[in-house]
Amino acid sequence: MPCSCSHQNPESLSMPDKTQMIQINGANGLNAAKSNGINGANGANGHPSEAQRRNPYAPRASDFLSNISNFSIIESTLREGEQFANAFFDTKTKIAIAKALDAFGVEYIELTSPAASEQSRADCEAICKLGLKAKILTHIRCHMDDARIAVETGVDGVDVVIGTSSFLREFSHGKDMTYITKTAIEVITFVKSKGIEVRFSSEDSFRSDLVDLLSIYQTVDKVGVNRVGIADTVGCANPRQVYDLVRTLRGVVGCDIEIHLHNDTGMAIANAYCALEAGATHIDTSVLGIGERVGITPLGGLVACLYAANPEYVKAKYNLPMLREIENLVAEAVEVNVPFMNPITGYCAFTHKAGIHAKAILNNPSTYEILKPEDFGLTRYVSIGHRLTGWNAVKSRVEQLGLNLTDDEVKDATAKIKELADVRTQSMDDVDSLLRIYHSGIQSGELAVGQKEALDRLLQQHHETSRERQQLGEVAVAA
Amino acid sequence: MPCSCSHQNPESLSMPDKTQMIQINGANGLNAAKSNGINGANGANGHPSEAQRRNPYAPRASDFLSNISNFSIIESTLREGEQFANAFFDTKTKIAIAKALDAFGVEYIELTSPAASEQSRADCEAICKLGLKAKILTHIRCHMDDARIAVETGVDGVDVVIGTSSFLREFSHGKDMTYITKTAIEVITFVKSKGIEVRFSSEDSFRSDLVDLLSIYQTVDKVGVNRVGIADTVGCANPRQVYDLVRTLRGVVGCDIEIHLHNDTGMAIANAYCALEAGATHIDTSVLGIGERVGITPLGGLVACLYAANPEYVKAKYNLPMLREIENLVAEAVEVNVPFMNPITGYCAFTHKAGIHAKAILNNPSTYEILKPEDFGLTRYVSIGHRLTGWNAVKSRVEQLGLNLTDDEVKDATAKIKELADVRTQSMDDVDSLLRIYHSGIQSGELAVGQKEALDRLLQQHHETSRERQQLGEVAVAA
Repeated sequence: MPCSCSHQNPESLSMPDKTQMIQINGANGLNAAKSNGINGANGANGHPSEAQRRNPYAPRASDFLSNISNFSIIESTLREGEQFANAFFDTKTKIAIAKALDAFGVEYIELTSPAASEQSRADCEAICKLGLKAKILTHIRCHMDDARIAVETGVDGVDVVIGTSSFLREFSHGKDMTYITKTAIEVITFVKSKGIEVRFSSEDSFRSDLVDLLSIYQTVDKVGVNRVGIADTVGCANPRQVYDLVRTLRGVVGCDIEIHLHNDTGMAIANAYCALEAGATHIDTSVLGIGERVGITPLGGLVACLYAANPEYVKAKYNLPMLREIENLVAEAVEVNVPFMNPITGYCAFTHKAGIHAKAILNNPSTYEILKPEDFGLTRYVSIGHRLTGWNAVKSRVEQLGLNLTDDEVKDATAKIKELADVRTQSMDDVDSLLRIYHSGIQSGELAVGQKEALDRLLQQHHETSRERQQLGEVAVAA
Repeated sequence: MPCSCSHQNPESLSMPDKTQMIQINGANGLNAAKSNGINGANGANGHPSEAQRRNPYAPRASDFLSNISNFSIIESTLREGEQFANAFFDTKTKIAIAKALDAFGVEYIELTSPAASEQSRADCEAICKLGLKAKILTHIRCHMDDARIAVETGVDGVDVVIGTSSFLREFSHGKDMTYITKTAIEVITFVKSKGIEVRFSSEDSFRSDLVDLLSIYQTVDKVGVNRVGIADTVGCANPRQVYDLVRTLRGVVGCDIEIHLHNDTGMAIANAYCALEAGATHIDTSVLGIGERVGITPLGGLVACLYAANPEYVKAKYNLPMLREIENLVAEAVEVNVPFMNPITGYCAFTHKAGIHAKAILNNPSTYEILKPEDFGLTRYVSIGHRLTGWNAVKSRVEQLGLNLTDDEVKDATAKIKELADVRTQSMDDVDSLLRIYHSGIQSGELAVGQKEALDRLLQQHHETSRERQQLGEVAVAA
């Protein structure tokens, strides 16, 4: 089975569909302006557009808690991502990833604990010395030994974590809430005394006792923690649970709220979105979502849903055309493929196939697209050489080829493409040949609409001529 | 770059991590019973368990609308999936996919419109004749011509769709709501007269006028449609929008409610989950989510989140160990890889790496797992030959190897593994060799805890012996 490594050079792939597509990027200049209506429909919180007034489900002023247009990303590829089964980042790779994330514009970069190993400590120090715009964090257990090592590395902040669920308290560290609270206060006070940021997070928050959780968050908020963190360590949360817990916490603490979401049931992007709606301020991501098991909220997916909500805010904040490059960098470092269905960069994320889709997309890309490929440095394709094709898509190709056919003639040619594609998918070359033959048949008077036998004869002649030419070529080579 | 085609035979892959892992499946029999607490925490609607009473965010009796434990899957790999860029299913492949989905237990299988092409019609008839348990549906435009062809194929039901958003009304079919309503009634009445199921769906529902939507749904409900469908055709919806629209619709119609969700921003699984919470009855899926652009709600992802909510219901309903086989079948047919981060079947979905995770997992898998791999015919791994390893994970390997080391000795050996893994990730063979050398050093008295030089010398000796043996082997071959 051929391997579709879309993070290598997608242009050089011999995927069957690449030859069947019409690139229509740039053909939509006239329609681009019209798409603003959609973007506006999910516009910035508090500024309802015309479309919002017409859509009862769009965000509106009453969403006073929402941080959909006011958030920071804590990029954890170099911490959570290092816990991915395939990950082994050497110093050079870590620095390349940190620089790329910084250039993309993430607000924070989180690194593996310097207590994990000697090299981890050295790499943490090296990245702190790069002078990046992003703040550098490291992630430690709630323990004074780890904290003392962390504050010496030059980081801008320390992310402290401890398991609070009954599962982790029983089967992991074996500590009770009194001990957890006492240690948390000690660690937070120590890190703050060094003049750097400190976050306190529970682990497995959605299976922790709510009263215990709120109690410890309130306590650490009072001792001046910069952020509290909620973590769905096992990936068990669903969107409305996340919304409810963050919203409750928002009423208990005054500090920022971070959330870390595992993706075991595929809901980590949506859960992050709902956390922001409920008032979270910081979202943890990793490139392609790499991390323990199936990982966490992916950077690209989070960007996709937040761009859909407020494109102008997200475009101003991040260097979106860099996304594919960063994903390719990390995919190569951990030896995985960019998933074919990845939001934005999946290799067919902007490919339109069904006849009715192709027709509408040609009229106005906003009909079937909420993400503009050009904002991500990518290109839209319409695929036409298959049995689900439609005559409007074929007509667009006829115009691109500079051929002159009436609508009835295009419909007639489309019927033949469908008939051939029922046997095997037609390449773009096949479709182009058929359209040229059809056109010259009409021009010469050998063909008219509905003359199936005449068309078959012309195609047969073309086929034979091609074969003769090929044989002549072979003879020439043999001679 | 090596290609990680996890849908081929994962056991034969030369992925670096596969050799670094401990398989601990079966080692957890004693702890399996304890995990019921978690599952119960998200138990069947209306039956709160002990854990539910303790978790304020678990589903409870007040979720009277929820169909999380009462839903049907409409599997659309053979309709939506055929709109995926790479898809070309011949008759044999379509039949193999239909039979596999039927054996898995999906309630409905949806096929491409017989009006799309001659072969599409013939394949639809062939699949209807297979005598599957699943009901067979076909998906048509809201048009009498298509309906007449559809009802003659032998299908159990017809799914009718028409665009209702202002975008599609302007740029696609150009019809107004009066025309749409009139045609819908005509088509529904006709299909019902043939004694088969009929569904009416809008397209791009989340960008349609709410009053128009509710009005047409109410009308078709009154003329006796079996289901109404909501479609997020462009993938713009978010979980709380989905919940709100389905909940509103639930109060307007008495018939079933189906939802079809595109995945452009990666929220299609979560949106489906929220639709069920709000009272939807039928969810559209495709295997691996294949469809237009990045596709729709994937079957595996939907199963993952619904299993997490109510494992007993989902296990009773579907043949879960078949999931991987079905995904491999479709992945090969459309020439893609199963994404590395796929829920359940992603090749490291049950791999645990960080030291604190490995320790807790060995004590009780429920600490970091909400899905039981054995329910899906899969296996859990703990990876230990890396810098984030912990001594508890190493101790488990020591026991598997039948070696006899004290905790202090295991901690000492772990420090050496971390030191070596800082340079390059250690294979399982490397780790095993080190543990055996450490053990024999202790036995012979050549080594004690903390004697770094002695351990280095023993490792060096082992290295030289191995090299000599290898050279002798080479000489023997040369002779």
